Amino acid sequence: MSSTFGTAFRITTFGESHGGGLGVVVDGCPPRLALDLEVIQRELDRRRPGQSRLVTQRDEADQVEILSGVIDGFTLGTPIAMLIRNADARGKDYADVARAYRPSHADFTYDAKYGIRAIAGGGRASARETAGRVAGGCVAQALLATRGIAIVAWVDEVSGLVADVDGEIVTRDDVDRNDLRCPDLAIADAMIARVEAARKAGDSVGGTIRVVARGVPAGLGEPVFDKLDADVAKAMMSIPAVKGVEIGSGFAGTLMTGSEHNDLFYRREDGRIGTRTNRSGGIQGGISNGESITARIAFKPTATIIKPQETVDRDGQPTILAGRGRHDPCVLPRAVPIVEAMMALLLADHLLRQDRIIAVRGSL
Amino acid sequence: MSSTFGTAFRITTFGESHGGGLGVVVDGCPPRLALDLEVIQRELDRRRPGQSRLVTQRDEADQVEILSGVIDGFTLGTPIAMLIRNADARGKDYADVARAYRPSHADFTYDAKYGIRAIAGGGRASARETAGRVAGGCVAQALLATRGIAIVAWVDEVSGLVADVDGEIVTRDDVDRNDLRCPDLAIADAMIARVEAARKAGDSVGGTIRVVARGVPAGLGEPVFDKLDADVAKAMMSIPAVKGVEIGSGFAGTLMTGSEHNDLFYRREDGRIGTRTNRSGGIQGGISNGESITARIAFKPTATIIKPQETVDRDGQPTILAGRGRHDPCVLPRAVPIVEAMMALLLADHLLRQDRIIAVRGSL
Amino acid sequence: MSSTFGTAFRITTFGESHGGGLGVVVDGCPPRLALDLEVIQRELDRRRPGQSRLVTQRDEADQVEILSGVIDGFTLGTPIAMLIRNADARGKDYADVARAYRPSHADFTYDAKYGIRAIAGGGRASARETAGRVAGGCVAQALLATRGIAIVAWVDEVSGLVADVDGEIVTRDDVDRNDLRCPDLAIADAMIARVEAARKAGDSVGGTIRVVARGVPAGLGEPVFDKLDADVAKAMMSIPAVKGVEIGSGFAGTLMTGSEHNDLFYRREDGRIGTRTNRSGGIQGGISNGESITARIAFKPTATIIKPQETVDRDGQPTILAGRGRHDPCVLPRAVPIVEAMMALLLADHLLRQDRIIAVRGSL
Amino acid sequence: MSSTFGTAFRITTFGESHGGGLGVVVDGCPPRLALDLEVIQRELDRRRPGQSRLVTQRDEADQVEILSGVIDGFTLGTPIAMLIRNADARGKDYADVARAYRPSHADFTYDAKYGIRAIAGGGRASARETAGRVAGGCVAQALLATRGIAIVAWVDEVSGLVADVDGEIVTRDDVDRNDLRCPDLAIADAMIARVEAARKAGDSVGGTIRVVARGVPAGLGEPVFDKLDADVAKAMMSIPAVKGVEIGSGFAGTLMTGSEHNDLFYRREDGRIGTRTNRSGGIQGGISNGESITARIAFKPTATIIKPQETVDRDGQPTILAGRGRHDPCVLPRAVPIVEAMMALLLADHLLRQDRIIAVRGSL
Repeated sequence: MSSTFGTAFRITTFGESHGGGLGVVVDGCPPRLALDLEVIQRELDRRRPGQSRLVTQRDEADQVEILSGVIDGFTLGTPIAMLIRNADARGKDYADVARAYRPSHADFTYDAKYGIRAIAGGGRASARETAGRVAGGCVAQALLATRGIAIVAWVDEVSGLVADVDGEIVTRDDVDRNDLRCPDLAIADAMIARVEAARKAGDSVGGTIRVVARGVPAGLGEPVFDKLDADVAKAMMSIPAVKGVEIGSGFAGTLMTGSEHNDLFYRREDGRIGTRTNRSGGIQGGISNGESITARIAFKPTATIIKPQETVDRDGQPTILAGRGRHDPCVLPRAVPIVEAMMALLLADHLLRQDRIIAVRGSL
Repeated sequence: MSSTFGTAFRITTFGESHGGGLGVVVDGCPPRLALDLEVIQRELDRRRPGQSRLVTQRDEADQVEILSGVIDGFTLGTPIAMLIRNADARGKDYADVARAYRPSHADFTYDAKYGIRAIAGGGRASARETAGRVAGGCVAQALLATRGIAIVAWVDEVSGLVADVDGEIVTRDDVDRNDLRCPDLAIADAMIARVEAARKAGDSVGGTIRVVARGVPAGLGEPVFDKLDADVAKAMMSIPAVKGVEIGSGFAGTLMTGSEHNDLFYRREDGRIGTRTNRSGGIQGGISNGESITARIAFKPTATIIKPQETVDRDGQPTILAGRGRHDPCVLPRAVPIVEAMMALLLADHLLRQDRIIAVRGSL
Repeated sequence: MSSTFGTAFRITTFGESHGGGLGVVVDGCPPRLALDLEVIQRELDRRRPGQSRLVTQRDEADQVEILSGVIDGFTLGTPIAMLIRNADARGKDYADVARAYRPSHADFTYDAKYGIRAIAGGGRASARETAGRVAGGCVAQALLATRGIAIVAWVDEVSGLVADVDGEIVTRDDVDRNDLRCPDLAIADAMIARVEAARKAGDSVGGTIRVVARGVPAGLGEPVFDKLDADVAKAMMSIPAVKGVEIGSGFAGTLMTGSEHNDLFYRREDGRIGTRTNRSGGIQGGISNGESITARIAFKPTATIIKPQETVDRDGQPTILAGRGRHDPCVLPRAVPIVEAMMALLLADHLLRQDRIIAVRGSL
Repeated sequence: MSSTFGTAFRITTFGESHGGGLGVVVDGCPPRLALDLEVIQRELDRRRPGQSRLVTQRDEADQVEILSGVIDGFTLGTPIAMLIRNADARGKDYADVARAYRPSHADFTYDAKYGIRAIAGGGRASARETAGRVAGGCVAQALLATRGIAIVAWVDEVSGLVADVDGEIVTRDDVDRNDLRCPDLAIADAMIARVEAARKAGDSVGGTIRVVARGVPAGLGEPVFDKLDADVAKAMMSIPAVKGVEIGSGFAGTLMTGSEHNDLFYRREDGRIGTRTNRSGGIQGGISNGESITARIAFKPTATIIKPQETVDRDGQPTILAGRGRHDPCVLPRAVPIVEAMMALLLADHLLRQDRIIAVRGSL
């Protein structure tokens, strides 16, 4: 029951790492929205394995097919189903995994939950599942673009090396300039070297991604439980390997006093009310205030490594496990489009929810 | 539509800071659960204003009444409604707030969203709303206690001062030993001095709270979107003033390599499979692994301060606003039972969701 | 988990027949809607017991209090909670019910489901629960009225006696002209005599209610599962004692051929597209077509009767049960405002859902 | 947002009449359930067009593929996605439909709702959409079968001709003995003649289907809104062409007195509590009582007919429309497996919801 996300704009994903394929059903997308299959494919290409030497070498074209909900390039208002076939054959790489639990992976917890699991490729726990999110996120981004909302994410830190990027102006082209997806070229090479070193050592590294949503109107998000920042937190923490989420000033903000931290209001040149700083990350009281939404997301180092590790088998007997398959020494480059997709999905949802209030307010 | 939380165990809260009262409807609580009104009242007392000089001096008894769903101290399986009357009269404290937007508060965003707002006390944006959560959380904790699950939260950091607490053994009695709710007595006094200094300066401070849930069985949480950690993140980020959430190693974990970070499995003396470390914070692949669930939550310094601040009025004209009402120089002491309540609510929800799977698994 | 109804406009009800009280939380109501407490009270008076000799003589004032979500007569956009206290004391009337299962009542099934039940007054299974629906329905009707949508229900048949009423012009004043709420005065007296005879015989009678919603715009309702007629069916079948629901031509329509049954389109004088007949009951393909929504609802004879009946006790032992408490010889007069409330609730929900689509369509 | 049904056991369908294909995602199915692809295909064959001369001659193999959630014939607990490709090419049959609105069809209302529509084959409004429901319903039936619950539906009435069938013993084999799916052989030929006559006349006929669910344990269904009968009503009314639903005695029950209508309890030979009659249709107070669930569903005559009819075009101009495509002179034979599927889906949902209560009750 965990495979559905969103209320007014809602996606349901399906699929395991191996098997017939993966996909997504987008329900609640408004009718008459122009949708470009090539744009969806391009985003999937940014997420797919094998795109550079920094990521896993599994060979998947991740070709997407739209099954329903779109005719002649326009949405119908009915569910948009998209399918991505699995291609790379099930190898012998998983014999060890069937025998023993990989540390900090989901092998053990799936067994504990279901008493059965798809072993090849991690089944539903594989990051391959996020292909459906990225496809669905493209529909959300097409909707957001009609309102002038743009989302950009980038690699902000790898293993302690921190980038310096201006979130108000950075573009996806800037981000995609290198394989790591870090637009601060002064530090990107050092980051890449870290990832390469980890790969050669059969190990992995972690890091953080920053994401910014620009052009979000004031009024999105709902008080109490479905606060905009609460949904950002859930959306990001649902991405594999994420262990932390910050909005605006985040943990660093706890070191400030209220008078230092508060974002002072002023009248902007265009007449709108703005804030002189954005420690709120564009959200106050759970509702967007018209400034850019900003978040930082922590990714742990990839759990699957080549180095031998102590673990136990399904009977609890101690054993040694060494990864043999392909693996991502650093998940961050491929996680960038996933972060963007999740941000787009939750913003599209809240945009439609607020549209309803605005529509009615006008008639009262 | 934001006032409902949970799927199988679900609460809906209502109420503004001023007006008839606040409350909660708990739906999905199993029948025949023993429920003690005194326990609920005790938790509300931990959250209520005026309990110490460290928090706001608004005078509210926060007396709770159970309206339905309970008979002779046992739940019926039907909705449990609880009501807390507002008592402290509406003062003249809010004339300024009606005129101008408090920086980093929800005044502006509520206006942007709804075009109308309850000005006195912040209306629904007031932290007073959390009284309903705490009442509902007590029902969840009564359910969890029947399975041996216990939750403890405490103040971990104030304005840079960090406590040293062993989450595996700390108790609520330890936590409640001082007004700040920091069980590390070596640092608590210094923290209290910081809060007092902020209060005297008409300013405020932030900090972090840690929470641990012990005794959680393996198997809770669902893959993909409703991961247990994703729901922890949403639950915590929905608490007023929260700007960041970490699970387990959090942001610090990004500095490690995979071989350093992975939690190695071993066979425990009781025969269960455990992990030698708990950087995962008790959750792997979004599902609990039987270790303690651990999280850290960042609270920004309270937005409402006495110090004069630049801002604008509803027409966008610049003005100066100085707080005159009662305020919390530090929200953390009162936030401790709220964090515990939210953790209990999401765990009760996932416990019931997993019960269903276990019930069926046995019959297949 | 059954106590919530609706998606965009959502109510959650609570309360048992005896105990602290009953109520409703309305979530998703747009802000700035004018709400009149007297109108709500008037509808509750139409539902309350003791209003005439045709219904149960339990004495309940059913005085409603608005706890939240409304200020100075206008909605805030936040949850509107309303409370109705139980007044009539718990009597000794229920000793028999505690001992034995009333035939065709919910005593047995509640025990089967929950293993515990509130015996006095039927607990949550009491029709008293519908007070919360009526209060919530008034909010929905206030919203619908701003769009020119009006709902009228009336008693159409009692025990085989059938009224002849023109649904396009009948008003609530017409309906309320007699205690039975049948606006066909030619047949109402005969119906009333049937109800009185049943009461004297310690027995009960059933019948049907018709409901019409006029002024509903084309486009409400959603394909597939949340069809407008599917939600009408669910809403009506959720009312106690209902055993059947028809939309438009209903079961009688099965006797016609397609060429006889189809509603032919034509251009109306105002330029809109209309249909010459309305066998569709205003709904085609699950979506409103701009004609009046019409439905007929079957109510079984009240299960609680005074006549002695064979039954079993909780141990399955045979026994004889004779009702001693107050009872409704015919539920229909009091069910009229409940039917109107449920129709209003589902239409308000679908209105807001469609508002969203219209709002977006305009921007694409 | 209408394409999802169910809470604990949930399906989401997608697909239009023409285009890439149709399908369903089943979420919430327990793990380790044996699933037989041939059984699913067999049910789809009962629903598919072209199976006899009584139904539309569109040629669709409706071959189903399982994309995810199943391995080696067992469910994984993760979403089960199934895909059915559209095969029969888009013809020129729909040129007229593009021009003018078919009376009592969804052409006009889809335009009113979305401002765009898939014209070929009725798009999402086509009964073809129900293929996904039937596939999903098979998963539900596999689950129900493990508890001894069996569902049988049959054609009960065609155009006024009524069958006489004992719902306690009838089997699907009995039902499938003729193309009409009426197990009363004494009347089936006359019914078939009616359908054939309608087909030859370019017209259509309606009728009713009865459905019975045997072996349903007491305790399913939830008080207030999600009553078991309320969900039966919604499920059935969501099937294309349905205009009425009755549970148990239905409309006929309104003619009886309470003392005639009540189902008297008695102790059965096996010790369980039963009722001597079943006018309640197996549901009391919205909760199953252990007797068979019985319902009757009214289908209007198919809207699409060959006979010329008056209508208007998209500009509201009068025109004459004569059907040219293939059509069903009577939808009932193909609707039988759809009714069974919907009943299975809602029962599986309520079964899992009640499992949770039972699981917890045991531990309190």
